[in-house]
Amino acid sequence: MPRTKGDHEARRRDVSAAVWQVMATRGFAGLTLRAVAAQLGATTGLLTHYFPTKRALVAYALDLLEERTLARPRRTSGTGLSSVRDALLDILPLTPEATDSNRIWVSSWDAALSDPELSADYARKYAGSRDRLRERVLAAQELGELPPGDPAQIASAAQAFVLGLVVQALFDPAAYPRDHQVELLDAYLSRLGGSAGRA
Amino acid sequence: MPRTKGDHEARRRDVSAAVWQVMATRGFAGLTLRAVAAQLGATTGLLTHYFPTKRALVAYALDLLEERTLARPRRTSGTGLSSVRDALLDILPLTPEATDSNRIWVSSWDAALSDPELSADYARKYAGSRDRLRERVLAAQELGELPPGDPAQIASAAQAFVLGLVVQALFDPAAYPRDHQVELLDAYLSRLGGSAGRA
Repeated sequence: MPRTKGDHEARRRDVSAAVWQVMATRGFAGLTLRAVAAQLGATTGLLTHYFPTKRALVAYALDLLEERTLARPRRTSGTGLSSVRDALLDILPLTPEATDSNRIWVSSWDAALSDPELSADYARKYAGSRDRLRERVLAAQELGELPPGDPAQIASAAQAFVLGLVVQALFDPAAYPRDHQVELLDAYLSRLGGSAGRA
Repeated sequence: MPRTKGDHEARRRDVSAAVWQVMATRGFAGLTLRAVAAQLGATTGLLTHYFPTKRALVAYALDLLEERTLARPRRTSGTGLSSVRDALLDILPLTPEATDSNRIWVSSWDAALSDPELSADYARKYAGSRDRLRERVLAAQELGELPPGDPAQIASAAQAFVLGLVVQALFDPAAYPRDHQVELLDAYLSRLGGSAGRA
């Protein structure tokens, strides 16, 4: 039976879903051809067609993580401080999908830190994310919603806060339900507002 | 030649140092009998005497991480806000030793998140750490160095901030040298001080 382009695309989507599911459950340490094959209900042999080596599987998984992160819906509720809040809320594990995605990001840190090239790539990504956040902080300062101060430093601190909150929420979802994460973020932003908020 | 207790202890220390070095360089994902043997200049066969399985090696590594974390020197520069600052400085990767240790902690998150028992254990550890920080926050509030507010929430936010800063500093040591980490922490504490600081 001839294979069509549609078959190929459908199979590729199935493989991606299986890789994602394995990463969300077992992390990169548990990402093996065998685990993906079991998730897919296929043979390991079929998987080697897609991923001749473990390295190829990991590279694919990292691409998939980036692709899904870029494609995720973003909040756009306003300008200034409200857009700073949007950007930070977009990172937190507030939904099952965002929890899976964060769990995979945290898992990928181990692989990334062990590989100088990948580590440099992650450093660039996080620096890019801080730059975009700095722009929003600057806009909030111009609107008088945040007090003066180095916007790069404020962005860097806010990014650290949210990343750490991600880690805490992943380990202890019972202690960090959705509302509590949002409450902690809002308390953080409110302190950041400081005198500007009270002016 | 009879083996003495001293031989045994010395060999155990060598093995621990080799496991530590492998984890600091390659993370848990790169922690294999072969890598530890190479680091130790020993055969894999010798290592299987200590670690019959990969699981035993990982369990040993996790114990070693906890043991070294508990044994690390702690700052004790004062009471109140100063002791909150001490506790947070103790976490940051401000020295090569603390960088190795943090890199291993971050690496262990992948293994921990994939294992419900280990994950619960980590959640308990972080909750314990927050409780101890809450005590210090409360003492700082009683001294009037921090404004009123739920000390548990303040501790939780500070812990998140510092954990995220660890991750950023590990990925981008050039952007987060020692002084910049301390500067970000002090800015955080200063904002936390808020009206109490200005009163």
